[in-house]
Amino acid sequence: MAPPKVTFLGPAASFSHQAAVETFGNSVELIPCLSFADAIAAVQNGGADYAIVPFENSTNGSVVQTLDLLVDRNDDYSDVKVCSEYYLTVHHCLLARKGLFPPGQRDYSCITKLYTHPQAWGQCEKFLGEHFRGVERQDVSSTSRAGETVLNTRTEVNAAIASGFAGQHYGLDVLEEEIEDITNNTTRFLVLKNVKSKHLTHYHPESAGQSIVQKQTLTVPKTEKTLISFMVPQDTLGTLADALLIFKDYGMNLTSISTRPSRLQAWKYVFLVESETDQNKEVVPGIMNRLTMVTENCKHLGTWANRLVTT
Amino acid sequence: MAPPKVTFLGPAASFSHQAAVETFGNSVELIPCLSFADAIAAVQNGGADYAIVPFENSTNGSVVQTLDLLVDRNDDYSDVKVCSEYYLTVHHCLLARKGLFPPGQRDYSCITKLYTHPQAWGQCEKFLGEHFRGVERQDVSSTSRAGETVLNTRTEVNAAIASGFAGQHYGLDVLEEEIEDITNNTTRFLVLKNVKSKHLTHYHPESAGQSIVQKQTLTVPKTEKTLISFMVPQDTLGTLADALLIFKDYGMNLTSISTRPSRLQAWKYVFLVESETDQNKEVVPGIMNRLTMVTENCKHLGTWANRLVTT
Repeated sequence: MAPPKVTFLGPAASFSHQAAVETFGNSVELIPCLSFADAIAAVQNGGADYAIVPFENSTNGSVVQTLDLLVDRNDDYSDVKVCSEYYLTVHHCLLARKGLFPPGQRDYSCITKLYTHPQAWGQCEKFLGEHFRGVERQDVSSTSRAGETVLNTRTEVNAAIASGFAGQHYGLDVLEEEIEDITNNTTRFLVLKNVKSKHLTHYHPESAGQSIVQKQTLTVPKTEKTLISFMVPQDTLGTLADALLIFKDYGMNLTSISTRPSRLQAWKYVFLVESETDQNKEVVPGIMNRLTMVTENCKHLGTWANRLVTT
Repeated sequence: MAPPKVTFLGPAASFSHQAAVETFGNSVELIPCLSFADAIAAVQNGGADYAIVPFENSTNGSVVQTLDLLVDRNDDYSDVKVCSEYYLTVHHCLLARKGLFPPGQRDYSCITKLYTHPQAWGQCEKFLGEHFRGVERQDVSSTSRAGETVLNTRTEVNAAIASGFAGQHYGLDVLEEEIEDITNNTTRFLVLKNVKSKHLTHYHPESAGQSIVQKQTLTVPKTEKTLISFMVPQDTLGTLADALLIFKDYGMNLTSISTRPSRLQAWKYVFLVESETDQNKEVVPGIMNRLTMVTENCKHLGTWANRLVTT
């Protein structure tokens, strides 16, 4: 049997790539895509079995492009549902070409240029202030691209700020690990599948990555999350509160709520409500029935095992 | 008396600049800022009386930077409150240097290069497909900058896609108006003031712009909006629903709800709830009292007259 195909937002060695490897292991075919829309469209049209997409970051909030694809205003992805999640802690490393620095040497004064994504400078300010004050900084389009640039630019002594995963991918030396200021900056990814695909019955992403990320699968609470989207009629008093009370009635705790423009009418919104319960999937049909009575265009976007480790 | 000072996100001729002029008229001193944070900090520290900042767009949703400044995690802007709002419909024009095309000429085949912000290409696809298939496109950092570039680049026959306001600012000819695909793409701006400033008692942004934007002030419903932020305890069943029910109990209809990471704890959120009523400010103290009992760090961020024209 051919291995399952998994799409992610490229380039190679991106954080999405890392999340895909840590979720699925190496027994799947990983397919980098140019956009989130391409990654999800491949799952809808059968070109891939799964997509893994970032949903939210603990510091920066929602990933709006992913929300818009889940909202699916034109019903382009009606067979695609969320089937799993993965929490990736974002760590930055200082990377250099192999052998440029002897192991243990921490004098970086010969480095004349640093490469990384614009956001990463701000995430490593303390480290950069201590070791690289006044050193030239070159923005690149991703941290992964920074690693690739350092690998290929041999006319200067340089270094990249990128993940250890990118360092491994490009065969670079990791000079320093965890140089980020915020130590628990975490991105939550959602795994999407095509509910009509036959291929998938033989494969369970919930267990596939266990050997790689044991801590994430062994200590999580035994609850399930459900994602539901709906609109509420405008100018109706308290409909959103009424809708959220339905979740409470069924013992579902809200774990996130997001809002996007409906694009049907200005200032009319789609709500994406994620809730959690230990009652498994039994309550979802009841919730959907009651939500359908008070909301518009209510859709069940998936139910999956909670993988958040609570500390 | 010195005229009030109003900060906005620059450059000159930006949509924020246009919103500032249409809200305040020309009797104020307008101060362009390099960031939203600079614009708001000036109001807090007394360097300006008002700031005008975009809050949400009817197509693209929330302006996250503004939400984060309103959330004000470090209490940097505790004296800054919302005092008004302004709805700006985003129109794009085709602009060229004065006199380059005779009035009424609609043959643009001599134009070899177009300039605009990357987002604007996508917003004018139909028009560009009809008139500018295959013509070189140059991205610039804002539509305003596109206008400025066309004014100053005389070595080629070019045009900019930008607002009529930018065209007027740079003295360009408007060749075509309203070339956008989505006709009702609207950005809502909030006007912020320092509640401790004495200067402000003489000045009312609600009435200042009337001559310029009559339609927005004459036909709006007589309601007021209130913005309140709070966090809810994690792992407590249904607290968000309970909090929203308080608004319902007081007859407040929810007009928007936004979520941002608290940055205190991963996956703990700050909610910004905007509600509307015709009961004026009387109900806000009662709502705040009850919210304080079920939520954490509850803040009243302002109450102001609704200026949304309902059609």
